[in-house]
Amino acid sequence: MKALVYHGPGKKSLDDCPKPEISAATDAIVKVTKTTICGTDLHILKGDVATCQPGRILGHEGVGVIEQVGSAVSAFKAGDRVLISCITACGKCEFCRKQMYSHCTTGGWILGNSIDGTQAEYVRIPYADTSLYPIPAGADEDALVMLSDILPTGFECGVLNGKVQPGNTVAIVGSGPIGLAALLTAQFYSPAEIIMVDLDDNRLEVAKRFGATKTVNSKDGKAAETVMKMTNGRGVDTAIEAVGVPATFELCEKIIAPGGTIANIGVHGTKVDLHLENLWDRNLTITTRLVDTVSTPMLLNVVQSKKLDAKLLITHHFKLADMLGAYETFGHAANTNALKVVIDM
Amino acid sequence: MKALVYHGPGKKSLDDCPKPEISAATDAIVKVTKTTICGTDLHILKGDVATCQPGRILGHEGVGVIEQVGSAVSAFKAGDRVLISCITACGKCEFCRKQMYSHCTTGGWILGNSIDGTQAEYVRIPYADTSLYPIPAGADEDALVMLSDILPTGFECGVLNGKVQPGNTVAIVGSGPIGLAALLTAQFYSPAEIIMVDLDDNRLEVAKRFGATKTVNSKDGKAAETVMKMTNGRGVDTAIEAVGVPATFELCEKIIAPGGTIANIGVHGTKVDLHLENLWDRNLTITTRLVDTVSTPMLLNVVQSKKLDAKLLITHHFKLADMLGAYETFGHAANTNALKVVIDM
Amino acid sequence: MKALVYHGPGKKSLDDCPKPEISAATDAIVKVTKTTICGTDLHILKGDVATCQPGRILGHEGVGVIEQVGSAVSAFKAGDRVLISCITACGKCEFCRKQMYSHCTTGGWILGNSIDGTQAEYVRIPYADTSLYPIPAGADEDALVMLSDILPTGFECGVLNGKVQPGNTVAIVGSGPIGLAALLTAQFYSPAEIIMVDLDDNRLEVAKRFGATKTVNSKDGKAAETVMKMTNGRGVDTAIEAVGVPATFELCEKIIAPGGTIANIGVHGTKVDLHLENLWDRNLTITTRLVDTVSTPMLLNVVQSKKLDAKLLITHHFKLADMLGAYETFGHAANTNALKVVIDM
Amino acid sequence: MKALVYHGPGKKSLDDCPKPEISAATDAIVKVTKTTICGTDLHILKGDVATCQPGRILGHEGVGVIEQVGSAVSAFKAGDRVLISCITACGKCEFCRKQMYSHCTTGGWILGNSIDGTQAEYVRIPYADTSLYPIPAGADEDALVMLSDILPTGFECGVLNGKVQPGNTVAIVGSGPIGLAALLTAQFYSPAEIIMVDLDDNRLEVAKRFGATKTVNSKDGKAAETVMKMTNGRGVDTAIEAVGVPATFELCEKIIAPGGTIANIGVHGTKVDLHLENLWDRNLTITTRLVDTVSTPMLLNVVQSKKLDAKLLITHHFKLADMLGAYETFGHAANTNALKVVIDM
Repeated sequence: MKALVYHGPGKKSLDDCPKPEISAATDAIVKVTKTTICGTDLHILKGDVATCQPGRILGHEGVGVIEQVGSAVSAFKAGDRVLISCITACGKCEFCRKQMYSHCTTGGWILGNSIDGTQAEYVRIPYADTSLYPIPAGADEDALVMLSDILPTGFECGVLNGKVQPGNTVAIVGSGPIGLAALLTAQFYSPAEIIMVDLDDNRLEVAKRFGATKTVNSKDGKAAETVMKMTNGRGVDTAIEAVGVPATFELCEKIIAPGGTIANIGVHGTKVDLHLENLWDRNLTITTRLVDTVSTPMLLNVVQSKKLDAKLLITHHFKLADMLGAYETFGHAANTNALKVVIDM
Repeated sequence: MKALVYHGPGKKSLDDCPKPEISAATDAIVKVTKTTICGTDLHILKGDVATCQPGRILGHEGVGVIEQVGSAVSAFKAGDRVLISCITACGKCEFCRKQMYSHCTTGGWILGNSIDGTQAEYVRIPYADTSLYPIPAGADEDALVMLSDILPTGFECGVLNGKVQPGNTVAIVGSGPIGLAALLTAQFYSPAEIIMVDLDDNRLEVAKRFGATKTVNSKDGKAAETVMKMTNGRGVDTAIEAVGVPATFELCEKIIAPGGTIANIGVHGTKVDLHLENLWDRNLTITTRLVDTVSTPMLLNVVQSKKLDAKLLITHHFKLADMLGAYETFGHAANTNALKVVIDM
Repeated sequence: MKALVYHGPGKKSLDDCPKPEISAATDAIVKVTKTTICGTDLHILKGDVATCQPGRILGHEGVGVIEQVGSAVSAFKAGDRVLISCITACGKCEFCRKQMYSHCTTGGWILGNSIDGTQAEYVRIPYADTSLYPIPAGADEDALVMLSDILPTGFECGVLNGKVQPGNTVAIVGSGPIGLAALLTAQFYSPAEIIMVDLDDNRLEVAKRFGATKTVNSKDGKAAETVMKMTNGRGVDTAIEAVGVPATFELCEKIIAPGGTIANIGVHGTKVDLHLENLWDRNLTITTRLVDTVSTPMLLNVVQSKKLDAKLLITHHFKLADMLGAYETFGHAANTNALKVVIDM
Repeated sequence: MKALVYHGPGKKSLDDCPKPEISAATDAIVKVTKTTICGTDLHILKGDVATCQPGRILGHEGVGVIEQVGSAVSAFKAGDRVLISCITACGKCEFCRKQMYSHCTTGGWILGNSIDGTQAEYVRIPYADTSLYPIPAGADEDALVMLSDILPTGFECGVLNGKVQPGNTVAIVGSGPIGLAALLTAQFYSPAEIIMVDLDDNRLEVAKRFGATKTVNSKDGKAAETVMKMTNGRGVDTAIEAVGVPATFELCEKIIAPGGTIANIGVHGTKVDLHLENLWDRNLTITTRLVDTVSTPMLLNVVQSKKLDAKLLITHHFKLADMLGAYETFGHAANTNALKVVIDM
């Protein structure tokens, strides 16, 4: 079968690979019908993710059709249409029992990382019963690809952890796909203001269309002052970090109101300065999280009920044969204005 | 009247000062019967607290008897015995309505800071109705002095924010008075393990008597390894920082289990390194807080019901006339083994 | 001044009454500019509310302008435009400190009940600092009249207590003004389905316009079966009772899913049957609540940010001189299709 | 093998039965080493539990040793010592994913009910990975038998649902084994007062030894008045119903303070009167629950850390051969003063 294979830093190709096989009774083989590319895939290609070794098929998002199930799989059978979660959960370990699937002792984020992933015609999904979701009849499968990772990530790590509430003021620092996913899902809770911060005017324009009430271009280095002015000196109740560098996290520290919450989504490569000399008495909460995809069933309901138009995040479509083109487009988002690209098989 | 007055960095004396007077309808004048000294008073004396200017009477803890009330005070009358909260709350502002009294827009921590305090024969208490608590008949007033600040601080900033739960594992870094207050009040929630970390073997001994299940002397620089070993490599569910320097906060970062909470109590003078490169995907919560004293009525109940022996924290007694001796003893705790000193009028 | 006075069961008139005066330092006198009529006023007129004695000026909702404040009022001054809360809160008692203002030991629902109310040119508001809210510049005051009682009641007693969540299924039993207020505010949390149940097709039509996704006319006695069918036999996550009779509460018992919440808003005059023989093992929560108006600042934010069009609830306008006509229209809602009537002074 | 078999209302015997066999890949066969009898077993013997048909081996509590596991069981192997949960959980269904294992669509309370149970030499446990718990080395297995059902039931349905908090006042109505389990576990949260209500002075004596601060014998019909007097007319913050008849539930309605919680544990056979005419405005929460055994790992920690002496509940020991004698003793608790009886194989 065709699959996108990582061959070490900077190297990838669309290869012919053997079709995966059931290797445990709890596995399923899924014929992938749609997949997408994540910012994390670009990190892997830079060589930043040590757990992902050369030879690995990338990808941890997608929808498909069950081809075959292991003997212990009871919730699915061949022919079922399924949503693939980016997080694999055994459902049995200490962390799974707390719904902290991201830390499943034998699962977590393994697809397209420590085991082969979804940017392929077929993929093996371990613990299928607790790592796949049935697709409701009549669902738009393009939209559902956004539920494998980006929407639960924005929602759980940003919105839920950030305790977004009706009437509150929220700032989202970073208007890339993940910041926009937080923006879309923050609106489930009807905050009064959502201030979007980014360096790119185009992305801020997109944010406005997606529901941001105010935008701040931080190019001038005065984002903190601007946000404080916008909030009459009060700061924001929730600051969502959706970039992953020290400057954006420290911006969150500067704009958070007493009693507020900083919810980190960004994947950080270095430490940040936490200014406890200013913050020790501010009654703050700071959270970090790898998505648990515990909200996937809820998000399926919300998408089905038309409260959320997940397809807003999709800017481009490709065929699997043009997977390299898809990476090219997604990897140069500043020029292509790409948010999420969908690859159809 | 006699009062302990701050005269600038390193300088204090027991002076004759004018007795305070009602200046707003919501004020009360309290005849102080017992007070104590807080670590924060030592910070002021080092010149670290800019809001506290020379000439200020220090002290934000104590019990006493109402001498006089302003015309708008309805909950108290002359002769009532009262507990003084270290936090003054108007009861009306945005923050008070959220029970975040520490950030009261016209109150908060002002006693012995921006207004004269309790280390005196009399003190003026603004917003008396919402800043004083009636002393139950038969209460031990020495014990109640511990409810002005140290016990609510340990409980709210450490235990409540730290989400201590039955069966959980807790580490408290710092076995001084505030860490010990966290230790005592953590036991309200029956954690399975409380690991106490400090440099001073004497304080660790005290911790054991107060209910710590394990102790770690961090002198050898291996506290993180030791705690990880004690928890079978899992880390602790709650890490309470009760010192206020980078090394102790960073120790908390190293020993916290996935899904855990770091609750900061310490007053920090400099930034700390937050290792988001390791922690971004650990599903952590980090909290800061200035005590709101919202738990004071509950703590009064618990002390009255004998579930908590607040007097354990008291090591020395002094008379107001010997206030300088009290400071001497409290300020050299390493030699005197002082925890809290009570000053009787 | 003119005021609507209750003269015992079935009797009311628009009388000339003395203008109220400051009687405590914490009082304010408010010149009422707009008021409205509540279903509770009709209950009083039936003689159902023992605490409300003949001679009482009715009304507990409205907006106005501060005419005069007592010496202890600090948050407001003459000329300030204010929203009047239906709940009077001292801000000091045990219940106020828990934000349970409805049970304030010297306040609670007293306006137009045990003290004179707002259906008058002027009203005395006790504890003004904690019972009035400043009206933001540029606000639509008609809309704000809906924030005195009906919107916080629908929101707090129905939506908050009912734990409405994104993606959930909600049933609201009763499509009168209070049920519709719950319907409007439930949408703050983006439930996937809101099923509205009533006997009146007109009100169900209104519910559809207000955002109900499904409606059920319960005239045929088969509402429970219908709702269960609509939910594929699962039942609803939240059932909000907005009528106040046994049949509607028991309908909620029949349609609630395991793990769900029944949130009672209705004012009940008799006991209901709680079928614990069926429900003891269903992991249910049942709540009751008198509105605390703790959400008023949030609702002000939401209305100001245009997330909620509170004016949707207003069907008629009257002048104070035609107060009796206003009661006539509101009291015969089945014929007049009245929801809320606004009375302008 | 020997097993206690239900033969229809009033009939049971110790029979020779075939040893159970693995019937699904997720099953385990456990050699039972200790079991016990539950009040529910007595209900079954009265013919009150329709799902339990004649021929059924009773019992849903116990500890044992794994004899054999199905091919899909990964967490246990033959020879492992295990605690059997009274609740069987597939770990995959909608309810299991919410940790509401009691409502598992193919599990829940089935042991000794719709499938054969633990009062036998061997038992088949479906979904072994998610329905058994490893026994820590050195644990006292008598104590652990109390963790199959009674302690998690008292804790989850009574204490957790009842939101017992430090400093609060709790009443537990019913001082039988389940009420006493609530009493023991309520103390995890350090309430200031626990008032125990029962008709039997002996059981109230036991309650005092177990930590009740006050006891009320309700024989005189004045329990409500007595509790209200004990709480200075305020009522209790939490009322736990641990009997299951209308009178005891209605007692809870009478003694609950505004803002309080009634947590039902009792298994009810008929409806109760819910006096909403008095309670609609009291800001109450009423909960029902079948135990989910979600707290079992925590309870194991607490028992291991000696914070809870689970063996206090055990009054008698029997051998399996004398199973009928064990029922006789347990079934006549008023005379035998039996709480829990442990049956050793």
